[in-house]
Amino acid sequence: MTDETRHALAYLSRVAEPPCPDLSMLVARHGPVAAAERVRRGEVGAELSRRTEARRGIDCAAEDLILLARLGGRLVTADDPEWPLLSLAAFGGVDIRNRPAAHPPLVLWVVGPGRLDDIGSRAAAVVGTRAATAYGEHVAAELAAGLAARDVAVVSGGAYGIDGAAHRAALAADGLTVAVLAGGVDIPYPAGHTALLQRIGEQGLLVSEYPPGVRPARHRFLTRNRLVAALAGATVVVEAGVRSGAANTAAWARSLGRVVCAVPGPVTSASSAGCHALLRGGAELVTRAADIVELVGRAGEFAPDEQRPCSPLDGLTEAEQRVYDALPARGTYTADEIAVASALAPTQVLGPLAMLEVAGLVIRQGGCWKLGKRPTPSTPR
Amino acid sequence: MTDETRHALAYLSRVAEPPCPDLSMLVARHGPVAAAERVRRGEVGAELSRRTEARRGIDCAAEDLILLARLGGRLVTADDPEWPLLSLAAFGGVDIRNRPAAHPPLVLWVVGPGRLDDIGSRAAAVVGTRAATAYGEHVAAELAAGLAARDVAVVSGGAYGIDGAAHRAALAADGLTVAVLAGGVDIPYPAGHTALLQRIGEQGLLVSEYPPGVRPARHRFLTRNRLVAALAGATVVVEAGVRSGAANTAAWARSLGRVVCAVPGPVTSASSAGCHALLRGGAELVTRAADIVELVGRAGEFAPDEQRPCSPLDGLTEAEQRVYDALPARGTYTADEIAVASALAPTQVLGPLAMLEVAGLVIRQGGCWKLGKRPTPSTPR
Repeated sequence: MTDETRHALAYLSRVAEPPCPDLSMLVARHGPVAAAERVRRGEVGAELSRRTEARRGIDCAAEDLILLARLGGRLVTADDPEWPLLSLAAFGGVDIRNRPAAHPPLVLWVVGPGRLDDIGSRAAAVVGTRAATAYGEHVAAELAAGLAARDVAVVSGGAYGIDGAAHRAALAADGLTVAVLAGGVDIPYPAGHTALLQRIGEQGLLVSEYPPGVRPARHRFLTRNRLVAALAGATVVVEAGVRSGAANTAAWARSLGRVVCAVPGPVTSASSAGCHALLRGGAELVTRAADIVELVGRAGEFAPDEQRPCSPLDGLTEAEQRVYDALPARGTYTADEIAVASALAPTQVLGPLAMLEVAGLVIRQGGCWKLGKRPTPSTPR
Repeated sequence: MTDETRHALAYLSRVAEPPCPDLSMLVARHGPVAAAERVRRGEVGAELSRRTEARRGIDCAAEDLILLARLGGRLVTADDPEWPLLSLAAFGGVDIRNRPAAHPPLVLWVVGPGRLDDIGSRAAAVVGTRAATAYGEHVAAELAAGLAARDVAVVSGGAYGIDGAAHRAALAADGLTVAVLAGGVDIPYPAGHTALLQRIGEQGLLVSEYPPGVRPARHRFLTRNRLVAALAGATVVVEAGVRSGAANTAAWARSLGRVVCAVPGPVTSASSAGCHALLRGGAELVTRAADIVELVGRAGEFAPDEQRPCSPLDGLTEAEQRVYDALPARGTYTADEIAVASALAPTQVLGPLAMLEVAGLVIRQGGCWKLGKRPTPSTPR
């Protein structure tokens, strides 16, 4: 890409609040350089003119690109091999009458060693409330560490609470983590996550459709959420109140045909209420990283069965179980007494008693039987 | 019913381990008295002969009925108006090839002032693990109290843990609670619930298909569970491990066409793992008594919406929100600065600013605007 094209796209990235489909169409028709020139001169349609009027006189593309270079970042455009084409193609399937913001970004401002097009095929968003509980942060960290260990990128929004716990755990597990920001890649937000975002920029990816210097704002978080959902194969909501940004990300994931997952929690916790609402609405219930890998991973990558306690009594036939149950807690029974207690015919109790004796579950004493040592019921298999 | 019939049924209730469909068919064909006579003499088919052989010589019907009368109880049979015909009719719809135990009881031994046929139309089973956590017992109690307050009977199994918490809370709320036992109504099991079961017998209902003196046994708990599920319109599992009796009750409820509900809990708690497995399998997620009433109650008895926090910013138009978000945290902006920050045309920011000023969200100062006092975001509506 020429410097002129790069500058034009950097200029266009600031001139209208994204997403701006009219601007994308203008670029597609005339190319970035001519499109930028038309916008600068106001030679555009009424709607685009309205949307670019306030900022068309502002051109700080050169400074923005210098600043980006200083951060070690790059401007990724639709012409770059790194453009996450497959991830963003999902916007094409959304009915924009219901979701006017369902458009891919014009460009992405990116910092970090990860490659955007790589993560798309194997990534999960782990998101949730800033007002997370210790439980929520613990689960977010467990899931993110498990995803990282299985080579699944962890996408999130860099916020306090669930997002931060997920990013941190992915970094600690040497996994790839991606923070999609609601402001410029040079604006650490929240300020308390400055060091965390710096590490993500060094080891993972910071991604934004906003040029440097843009401050996060409420509507930008909502707009940003669509990219979190698009870049991940599944969106996992760990904790969320009934009104939350995470629910918005989940709604985007659903619109984009992505898998929506939610982690259940105590019904007494307001921080899990949003997750329970999502589960009622059909979200997948996940409890372990393996559950998520099964959803975003390669075909045939199934989660192992959960460990279940088992007991030597499991393999008993119905008659054996009834005979075993018929024996008294203390003392002995004759075969006839066992028959009465179990309501099995007297001739039917001797076979089961022999099998139980072999298994060590009952002990023969004279002509009577008593219970053997109580079997330990909780060896995982 | 004649005393002779009553005695015959009491005898038959002990002679075979329930459920015994061959015995029910014999009674239906010949009447209880003649059926009892045939069983006593061994004049029955091979299968029924095998199932009654061990106990056909035992007749303690008279003693059983005297003991029952002393407990203030009654033998409820299919001829009694109290017989919960509608509840038990559900067994007719079950494929017995998959569920050989899917048969109604021959009789029910009952103690307590409640009426069996009354509860059937408005009852929920609240069940779960004996190894309940404080969370599980708290939720079981909340749900049971809420059901009692809404005139829904609380059915359970009298066990430690979830069952006990549910019974106790229903009693405390002056509601009707029903304990379905896996042994005789004269055998308090577990022993630590002797006082609780006594109170249930005085204020609610103790129900068993086993005659007095029969000790609970493993297979009887499983057989008993089908009656818990049948007597309740919905079965709610509050906490359950992956292997648990509660999961068995839920499976019965599903077979009987009853609603299966589960309460989510922390994914870090083994006591909620069974609930999460049920939810994955399609169980209804419930968090409040009102959710359950909606499922077992009269048509149109809907749960109220959960309270959601709301904020004065909720009603803003998109332009108003963007203008509001564009204002700096401290200091003032001119209309042009707001236009640049929000990417709205300068002519489009004045209308929204006026509306925001009326709402007290922004304050005009000279020719500039600044944010008003931060609105409180959590008034429930």
